[in-house]
Amino acid sequence: MKIITLLTDFGTKDPYVGIMKGVIISIHPHVQIVDITHEVESQDIREAAFLVESYYQYFPGGTIHLCIVDPTVGSERHPIIVSAHNQFFIGPDNGICTLLFHDNYMVYTIENRDVMSETISATFHGRDIFAPAAAYLARGTPLTSFGSPVSNPVLLDTIHPKIDHNILYGEVVRFDRFGNALTNISYELFKRFTEGKPFTIRIGKMRFTSLRKSYFEDTEVCLVGSSGYLEFATYRGNFREEHSIWKGDSVTVTI
Amino acid sequence: MKIITLLTDFGTKDPYVGIMKGVIISIHPHVQIVDITHEVESQDIREAAFLVESYYQYFPGGTIHLCIVDPTVGSERHPIIVSAHNQFFIGPDNGICTLLFHDNYMVYTIENRDVMSETISATFHGRDIFAPAAAYLARGTPLTSFGSPVSNPVLLDTIHPKIDHNILYGEVVRFDRFGNALTNISYELFKRFTEGKPFTIRIGKMRFTSLRKSYFEDTEVCLVGSSGYLEFATYRGNFREEHSIWKGDSVTVTI
Amino acid sequence: MKIITLLTDFGTKDPYVGIMKGVIISIHPHVQIVDITHEVESQDIREAAFLVESYYQYFPGGTIHLCIVDPTVGSERHPIIVSAHNQFFIGPDNGICTLLFHDNYMVYTIENRDVMSETISATFHGRDIFAPAAAYLARGTPLTSFGSPVSNPVLLDTIHPKIDHNILYGEVVRFDRFGNALTNISYELFKRFTEGKPFTIRIGKMRFTSLRKSYFEDTEVCLVGSSGYLEFATYRGNFREEHSIWKGDSVTVTI
Repeated sequence: MKIITLLTDFGTKDPYVGIMKGVIISIHPHVQIVDITHEVESQDIREAAFLVESYYQYFPGGTIHLCIVDPTVGSERHPIIVSAHNQFFIGPDNGICTLLFHDNYMVYTIENRDVMSETISATFHGRDIFAPAAAYLARGTPLTSFGSPVSNPVLLDTIHPKIDHNILYGEVVRFDRFGNALTNISYELFKRFTEGKPFTIRIGKMRFTSLRKSYFEDTEVCLVGSSGYLEFATYRGNFREEHSIWKGDSVTVTI
Repeated sequence: MKIITLLTDFGTKDPYVGIMKGVIISIHPHVQIVDITHEVESQDIREAAFLVESYYQYFPGGTIHLCIVDPTVGSERHPIIVSAHNQFFIGPDNGICTLLFHDNYMVYTIENRDVMSETISATFHGRDIFAPAAAYLARGTPLTSFGSPVSNPVLLDTIHPKIDHNILYGEVVRFDRFGNALTNISYELFKRFTEGKPFTIRIGKMRFTSLRKSYFEDTEVCLVGSSGYLEFATYRGNFREEHSIWKGDSVTVTI
Repeated sequence: MKIITLLTDFGTKDPYVGIMKGVIISIHPHVQIVDITHEVESQDIREAAFLVESYYQYFPGGTIHLCIVDPTVGSERHPIIVSAHNQFFIGPDNGICTLLFHDNYMVYTIENRDVMSETISATFHGRDIFAPAAAYLARGTPLTSFGSPVSNPVLLDTIHPKIDHNILYGEVVRFDRFGNALTNISYELFKRFTEGKPFTIRIGKMRFTSLRKSYFEDTEVCLVGSSGYLEFATYRGNFREEHSIWKGDSVTVTI
């Protein structure tokens, strides 16, 4: 049984996600559908890009991931299928898959009318294009039957940290439910940059000179979160609110 | 495998929905359960009626839809099963199915004790009556074994717009997660009423003289939403909050 | 097909729950996963203990319940599997299973590295230890292969009401979505204590001298909620907010 996961900014108040599931099941009932989240911050493609990178590797090969944060639905932006890391990703070509495009990957547009709903609305491609594409892919429709290859998929600029001499410039890219602040500085990059030397991490008015292992080691901690990026947390508190941190706030590592 | 969908106002904080799923699976494990939403505004039967109309058609024939917004649980209101549009709907007889009652339909009470839980609480018929009914229906129990036919199911009055000469009087009936304001004016009705003539749509202090195709065509747009009703939206904003719109606010179309 | 349920305080904004499902399915795809709730109040083990007691009995024998509220993840607290009431419960040994430990039960630690993920983070045992344990248990790994028996699992003190002469001292332990206040006074205990005599129930400045059957019988009611505990509700209102009730607020029954 094929697995289809869903990540959207549709929320769970409206019937949109349920409708997409109905469309999928109507085309191909032998699937297992797993919700990742429907609470991506409204229309925040960048947050979605970091989220997509954080879960796909925990699913079996061949899993189909629907990734729909789509502020320009109804414009000329293309719907695409990405084949990468032995999995599939379906969504708008707006940069949501930016962090998947290393190693080998293939991208196809979805333009064949046979793999879409009969009527295509201008407002709900999740229902009319993306969900049907996932169902047909699960049913065995080959990638080449969806549309034509895309050689230059849209990428989000400025998604990666920058290095200037002895300073690594990153930023806060999302918050988790507990108010922990997640950065775009991966532990990999951090290690390559610091090379074991002493370092100071700065966010707002705070400084950290060590990485902790667990949330309870101090009131305020900087640690490597479960998705592999530097993260700030307040034990039994809300880091975001207590320190008035916003998305895009600067995080630096100085050696 | 039969599909059972769930629409309630139970929220997802409490274990109520999980308990209903446990009850269903215990009676009949070979079902696929799909959540539509559990965030219908608390006890708002009218909002639920419009929601129910918006998703059932995307599910395969024979799907069983549990629709539970039930402010008078424990009173004399009947639990019912509705067979309509080649699908089944199970819930309280309080008007939640109002918009399904056209074309052919049949309604039965659920009163046979064999299709209920052993103990019937006064507060949680979702668990004790509705979930078991869905499971027995999925398992093949015929409609006539649940109870007796109902010839006059409860209908919500004043759910449809009214026409007075050259003015169509509708109203806002729900909001989606983005703060878009959905009306009870279907595009079908709008077209029949305007007959291609110039029109003015009024809501609050705003006027619209055209319908747009996409959310991004203007700051404020009136368009036909994905469920086929006129809808107001603010691009990258929240129409409801920015214009202090409430459920029940008047929406008129003048020709 | 084995059933695995999930109760956590992870929320549904982050991909944590989806990741756990991916881990489960990757190890053993033939499971049906049911979400109970992911909105346990952050790190509130006591609320979780009452929740766990409220849903397990509605699931078929052999169901595996993941119960993860884990404020000290990464410390020395043990991961455990509890076998009780013909079901399994997997989570941290921090008292979350307190209300399950009557009749016969067995507890085992999870310490065999073969039933865990290859890398064990300090922050996300849901993904690295608990989800894999559930999947291996569903796949047939015997209880004794997970670790060693635990004879003294952690219990939450002061979880039960106390009786002093003619007064039963209980308290508010959680709120449901509607703002109803649920107590730790079970109807069983209430009946044994009052023995049919007249009684007065006090919470805040309110007094109740009878239990109602349904929420709509009065503006303010005290009734036996669907999980079998005394509960306070405001009809079409929010008891918690209208009476400024907090968790831990005293509830007494006097005869």
